[in-house]
This record gives sequence, structure tokens and C-alpha cells, in this order.
Amino acid sequence: MNTPEAIAARIISVGDELLLGRSSDTNATRIERALAPFAIPVRDILVIADRIDAIAAALERTAPEDLVFLCGGLGSTADDVTRAGLAAWAGVALEHREDIAAALAQRRRRRGLPVLSALAGGDPQALVPAGMTPVANPVGSAPGLVGRLRDRRLIVLPGVPQELEALLPAVLAASERFGALPPARRTVLWRTAQLAEMALANLIEPVRERYADLQWSYWLVEWGVDLFVRGGAAQQPELAAAAQEIDALLGDAVYGRQMMSLPRVVQELMLAQGKTLAVAESCTGGRLGAAITAEPGSSGYFLGGVVSYADAVKSEIAGVDSSTLAAAGAVSGRVAEDMAVGIRRRLGADYALAVTGIAGPGGGTAQKPIGTTWLALAGLDAVWSGCCRYPGDRERNRQLAVAGALDSLRRALTGVPVFPAAGLSWSRPS
Amino acid sequence: MNTPEAIAARIISVGDELLLGRSSDTNATRIERALAPFAIPVRDILVIADRIDAIAAALERTAPEDLVFLCGGLGSTADDVTRAGLAAWAGVALEHREDIAAALAQRRRRRGLPVLSALAGGDPQALVPAGMTPVANPVGSAPGLVGRLRDRRLIVLPGVPQELEALLPAVLAASERFGALPPARRTVLWRTAQLAEMALANLIEPVRERYADLQWSYWLVEWGVDLFVRGGAAQQPELAAAAQEIDALLGDAVYGRQMMSLPRVVQELMLAQGKTLAVAESCTGGRLGAAITAEPGSSGYFLGGVVSYADAVKSEIAGVDSSTLAAAGAVSGRVAEDMAVGIRRRLGADYALAVTGIAGPGGGTAQKPIGTTWLALAGLDAVWSGCCRYPGDRERNRQLAVAGALDSLRRALTGVPVFPAAGLSWSRPS
Repeated sequence: MNTPEAIAARIISVGDELLLGRSSDTNATRIERALAPFAIPVRDILVIADRIDAIAAALERTAPEDLVFLCGGLGSTADDVTRAGLAAWAGVALEHREDIAAALAQRRRRRGLPVLSALAGGDPQALVPAGMTPVANPVGSAPGLVGRLRDRRLIVLPGVPQELEALLPAVLAASERFGALPPARRTVLWRTAQLAEMALANLIEPVRERYADLQWSYWLVEWGVDLFVRGGAAQQPELAAAAQEIDALLGDAVYGRQMMSLPRVVQELMLAQGKTLAVAESCTGGRLGAAITAEPGSSGYFLGGVVSYADAVKSEIAGVDSSTLAAAGAVSGRVAEDMAVGIRRRLGADYALAVTGIAGPGGGTAQKPIGTTWLALAGLDAVWSGCCRYPGDRERNRQLAVAGALDSLRRALTGVPVFPAAGLSWSRPS
Repeated sequence: MNTPEAIAARIISVGDELLLGRSSDTNATRIERALAPFAIPVRDILVIADRIDAIAAALERTAPEDLVFLCGGLGSTADDVTRAGLAAWAGVALEHREDIAAALAQRRRRRGLPVLSALAGGDPQALVPAGMTPVANPVGSAPGLVGRLRDRRLIVLPGVPQELEALLPAVLAASERFGALPPARRTVLWRTAQLAEMALANLIEPVRERYADLQWSYWLVEWGVDLFVRGGAAQQPELAAAAQEIDALLGDAVYGRQMMSLPRVVQELMLAQGKTLAVAESCTGGRLGAAITAEPGSSGYFLGGVVSYADAVKSEIAGVDSSTLAAAGAVSGRVAEDMAVGIRRRLGADYALAVTGIAGPGGGTAQKPIGTTWLALAGLDAVWSGCCRYPGDRERNRQLAVAGALDSLRRALTGVPVFPAAGLSWSRPS
């Protein structure tokens, strides 16, 4: 029953808001990713209303070989009935746990909220279906629950995405302890930028074929493509050998080996090297600065910059010569370089990034089709520029330009060529 | 069977990628919103793999009173088995439709793609389960399907979100024609900015109570809160009376009465009035410019601006006096006004918006807690500023600041007070 082959996960998401057009369920994706190291596939996801009968019916659909995730409806108001639904289905009592009630009361006092008294029935979040084990919630009030009822392995989680995400490692560890999960596989991760998914897949295909028994997966993220390779305890030599070959193939296209965003990687490098950054943005319109400043602590290295959407602003603030604009066109390597050099000097920054391109849907020509984007990086004694033809729509092209610009800075800071060789990446005219 | 009371929708989303941690299902939310005018509740959402047996089992769970949405798996590759799964469950044949095949072939030729020949079995997207009616796809290749099989009302849609969204009105209209839907209710919409959801709810509560038979709903969107009120054919007088009272209560907090984003509303006003805009951003770090330029056509009025994340940039480019910065602090009405006036003059714009605030998680003080944000608008002969205390985390506070800035410009352009009165809105010190 406990072999990786036999287990499949079933996810049950409970929440009226998920059925009323108010929000989409993103928790299932979080659970799927957390299960990947255990090689447990997800069989289906069922989204239901906050109703005891709906919860019981959803649990009734599951089978003993399933690992059942029951998410949402663990709040402390009358419409939160997941604990009651689980207890009703399993035919067990809801037990009031003094230790949880005390921790919840302390948490409420710290936040200046009224404590739910025993007279009013106490805090419903202190109720635990008999036979389930609570797991403390590091960022919210409702504890997670793990255990086995009616021969099902159950994991119960709050629906608030941050709370679910924070609790996942602990509930999986607790489930491992009581034998509900196969041992986690070792995972090796590469985070790549400036590589199309298909280009990455083609590049590593010979290795994947040679080590087909390992578990291979890709995820497309905002900054590029993540590659995961996993293996069980007996596969450690193969995994190490494959990882070495992948390292050699991907080389400097890899910006990280752990779950850290590209802006965060750049921020850590900039802070460690004590450098400052300015930006000059045309087609991205501020999105590069927005991505950089989405990270707390970015004020430690980011000075600011200019959004030079109109050509006059490219001249007026970034110091691009109007004759250059006229001769080369706004979307050109010469203008991108001048924007970077100009804003770097203007703000007294160590580095400056510039982006100018045609995001679409309008503005494309035969010579400069939609997606044509010039990136430039200016440093103390050099300026680099490169051109890409991104394949997406306006939104995606702007996202790829932001990732490309950040990655070129990451490359400069780590001493590898600022613009990767053609062929590794999107098409690169000139 | 056909009364609004009896109908409930069941949504079945088909797609391996939804179970592999690659993407979350957002189509269900789109369907829920499209069903709101018909007052049809969604009973549950089931997400399953691209497998004929899984599709047949999911359909088997439905009942004759259900309106069944089956989404995804309508592509033309071997793993797209939704048509086959539906035909297998219903026990009907898949019929090859020459008219669809011809339209698909023409579409492929226009795009320079090879036409799938009859020898290779033809285009699988031209196959229709007997008894279903195809509905042409305006933005993609796979047609939608509507019809009744085994006593179920069925609507089949492609899984690509843009295609599903584009097809929804047509499949609902086709379903109405064959009697599968109750008549749509008339909907009145108000899009509001700078109002917390609870403030909006409290404001309209007396009207909602008086017209409790109408259907009331709110949706929180990026720019603020949308209010929908709906009524059936017999309720038109009530709906009109309620709408008049809501109009009076919401007044100039409403930026739109149809589904158009706040940046788009601002863009249309600016283009119609032939005015230009510059921005100076501190805590939003470029996000205001990014929101403006996400709209195609924004170059018709948006010149650009400065991201003055560091105080030196506020002085150097936006022209804020360093003594003002020292005396008032970077997060102050005086600095916000000087940023707006400075960048407006610098770029020769008709209007300029400025934002400076404390987004969090660091930087809050007792006088200026996290969320404190000053917005300013400079015009030809006036400058306005206002302060808000946004209640969210870094991400949400930056989003609210962008919406607040855009809304203040919208208000100026429509001749109402640039900053709304306190009480309508977030807390507004000073």
C-alpha cells in the first residue's frame, strides 16, 4: 500500500469563494509541487462549497490507496465546517484541545483581539477530530491536521495560500513519520533564464535519455524555466552523474540552484559587491523597476531610473542624442547603449540597465518585427548590448525583457559573458 | 427542470498540466462570472487528467439537472481526448464535419502551417460527437460544442483561457436557444476605486436591504471593487430604482459602468482630451508606469517619468529640493507635490502623477506606519496631494497606490474633486 506506485493524491478544496467567481484555487498547484519529491501523482482536484454534506461526499469518493488533502474551511466562523465535515464522515468526535486553545488565546491577545471564551463554546480552531494529530501553523491560527481515519491517509490544511504554503513541509514531515508517505527523493534543481523551454529540452535531451529512470520535470516561471531531476535512495550515483552532465550543458544559463527569484539573486549579488544600479526603460514602461523593487531590501542597491517612453524623454533625461535616435531608430543597440550609459552617469550608479523594444501588438515592421528588443548594460568601463526576438504577446514580451535585463546584470556580476551565445536562447539578430 | 432554482453548474477541467504543478485552473472562475447573469450557482469543479476513462467517470458523476461544462483537451494532438471521452461516455459516434475541416485548413494555410490531410485521419478538431452542435472559435482553432447527451446539458470549451473567454458568450447564447438556460438577468455594474470592500458594503447596505430580492455581488479586482446588481424580467422597475439610489451613493467613486480597466479609462480620457502625462514614482518603483504601458496605445499620451527610489534621484531628476526632503521626509505631501511639479515641468507634460510611501515590510514608524502613502497630481495651474494608509502587505500596498494615483487623474479629468472625501475610503490622515 505504501509503495510510490500505489499512492495517488486527491485534493479537496473547500470554499464558497472558489465557486462564486471571486477567486481561483491555486493551492492545488502548491500541493502538486510539494509532492513532486515523493513522486506522488495527483489524481484529481475537487472544489466544493463550505457544506458538511459536500465535504462528507467528497471524502466518500476517496479510496484507501489515496493520500487525501482537505484544504480550506478551518477558520473560526460559522461557515467554516471542514473539521465538522471530516468528523461526520469519519464518525468520530471533535475533541477540544486545551493546548491549542491556550496557544490561540495567547496569539489573539498579542494582536489585541478578543479571546473566544469557553462560555461561547471556545475557539473552534482548538477542535480536533479524534485520531488526527495537529501541526502548528507558523503564520496563522488554524493548525494543520494529519492522521488516518477510515483507512484514509489525511492531510488537512487551511485555505489561505500563505498559511497552506508555510504548513506544507511540516505536514508532509509528520505524514512521513507515521508512514503515510514514501521516502522523499533527492531533488536537483537548475533555474535558467534566457532559454526557451523547447531550447532547454533539446539541449538536455541526450542526458535525459541516458538517465530515463530518473524523474525529469520542467516548470515555466516568470524568470525562465526551472529544471528538476529526482531520484530515489538507490539512484544517487545516477543522479550525481546526470547532474554533472547537466551542469556542463547549462553552464552560465543557470542563475540559481535553489528556490530564489532572479531579482532576489541579483539583489544578493549587488549587496554583497556593494554596487548600485540605475535603469532606463522604454517598452517595459517601469516593469523592470517594479520587479526589482518588489523585493524588500532593494533600496540597498537600487537608485531608480527613467521611464523614457517618448523619444524626447530618452534625449532629455537619459541623454540619448537626437541624431542617434533619428539615424538608428529608438529600437536599436546604439540607443539602448546610450540610454544605459546616460542614466548611469546621470545617477552616479555603478551599473545601469536599459531596455528598448517593440512589445506589440502594434509597431512591428519587416526589419524590426514585434518582439524585437534591445537590452544594454553599462558598467564602469564597458557597455554591452544584445538583441532578442521574443515570441510572445505584449505582456509576455515585456516579462521576458525584464528577465533578460536582470539576467544580463547577474551574468556581469558573476563574471560570465553578459549576453549568452546565440543558439542557447531566443533568436538573436545581429 | 429548467427553472433557475433547479439548475446547478458542474465544471470539469481536463488537463494533465493542472495536476502536475505547472498551472492552476483559472477557467472555472471565468465560467462562474459568465453564469452570474443567469443566477446559476456552480456546485463543484473537478480537475482531471487527459484520459478517456477519467472524462467518462467525471461525466458519470453528473445529474440531469446539471449544466455541465467540460473544458480542455480539445487540441489536435494525441493527448487531447476530451471529444473521444465525451463520445465514449455518451455512446455516440464522432462525426467528421467537412465544414469545420475546411475552415481549419484555411486557418492553417493563412498561418503557413501544414494542413492535416484526410489520409492522416484529418484534423481531429473537425470531429463532433453526434448530437452536439459546434460553435465557431473567434480566437483559436477548436470549436466549442453545445448540446444534450444522455439527458445532460453539455457545454464543451477549449482550455486555453483566452479561447474559453472568447467563446463563453457564444456557447451561452447557443445554450439559451436550445432551452438549456434560464433567461439572462439584466445586470447593472459599478466599478469603484479607492473604496475598501467593507466601506462600499456599508455604504450601500440600506439600499441592498430595501431591494433584497435583487441579486447583489462584489468582486475585488486590481483597481478596486466592482458592484453587480441583477434582476429578472419582472424586476426591472426595482432594479432601475435601486440603480438610481446606488448612483447617488457612490457618486464620483465610480470610474466605469462597463468592463474596462482603470488604466484604459484614463487612457481614453487622456486621448480624448489630447493631454500628456508624466510620472514620478518612489515606493511603486515603476509599477505605475508598468500599469499605464500595459495598455496598447498608451504611447499616445504617456511620455514617461522617473523612478526616484533613492532620495538623490528625487532631487537630481524630479527637482525636489534637498532641504524639503530633510525637513518633511521623503514620505510627505510636500515631497509628493514637488515630485509631481518637477517631473511635469521637466518633461513638458500636461499632467504629472507622483507616489511616495512606505510599502513595508520595513520602514514603518509610529508617525508614518507601513502603508502610509502620499499621492500628488500636478496640472497646469494647480497641484493636489492626499495621504492614504493602505492596509495590505508590500505587494497590495503598491497595487493600491497605483490604483489611487490613476484614479486621482481620472477624477481630475472628469472634473470632480481629485482626492475623495474621508470616510468614503481608506483612512486618510491629514
